[in-house]
Amino acid sequence: MIEVDEILKNIDGPFKNVVGVLIVDRDGIIIKSTINEVVDSIQNYGLSIANIVESANKAMNENGELQFLRMKTKKNEFIVVPDKEYMLITILNANTS
Amino acid sequence: MIEVDEILKNIDGPFKNVVGVLIVDRDGIIIKSTINEVVDSIQNYGLSIANIVESANKAMNENGELQFLRMKTKKNEFIVVPDKEYMLITILNANTS
Repeated sequence: MIEVDEILKNIDGPFKNVVGVLIVDRDGIIIKSTINEVVDSIQNYGLSIANIVESANKAMNENGELQFLRMKTKKNEFIVVPDKEYMLITILNANTS
Repeated sequence: MIEVDEILKNIDGPFKNVVGVLIVDRDGIIIKSTINEVVDSIQNYGLSIANIVESANKAMNENGELQFLRMKTKKNEFIVVPDKEYMLITILNANTS
């Protein structure tokens, strides 16, 4: 498990616009997070993104499984890499250059 | 309207991995397309993407409107720029380098 923590820290560490990195299960429940204080809003991101990935997979089913998703809203940007059981979610601050 | 056609052609033209460029309304109905033969599967992309953008906006509502969406599946990649009334969708072939 230490290896996973190292990898998450490498993604999160050096980049000042990275808010945090999450590993969630396919339902969006947080398994690991680099954000110390996992408040409701962070858990909600997991649940919301799991919901969006599921609706994208349903909508695009003949196109094959979703392999990558990047979404930008006014406040944040989300880079999502879904896998069979888990999803890696990087949350960025959309307003730092 | 000629100006819009020019813009679409500029996006579609030079890049060999671009399958086509669509302008759809917020329900996903195709208004303009650079793909000559708009078959069901292309119209379905519009409808599916409109569905995904809507569910993303609902899920992420306190984060502000979705400004950009990029999705990669096994077969295609979709770059989506939603606006108030319309959405610009660029469809790329995910397997050409």
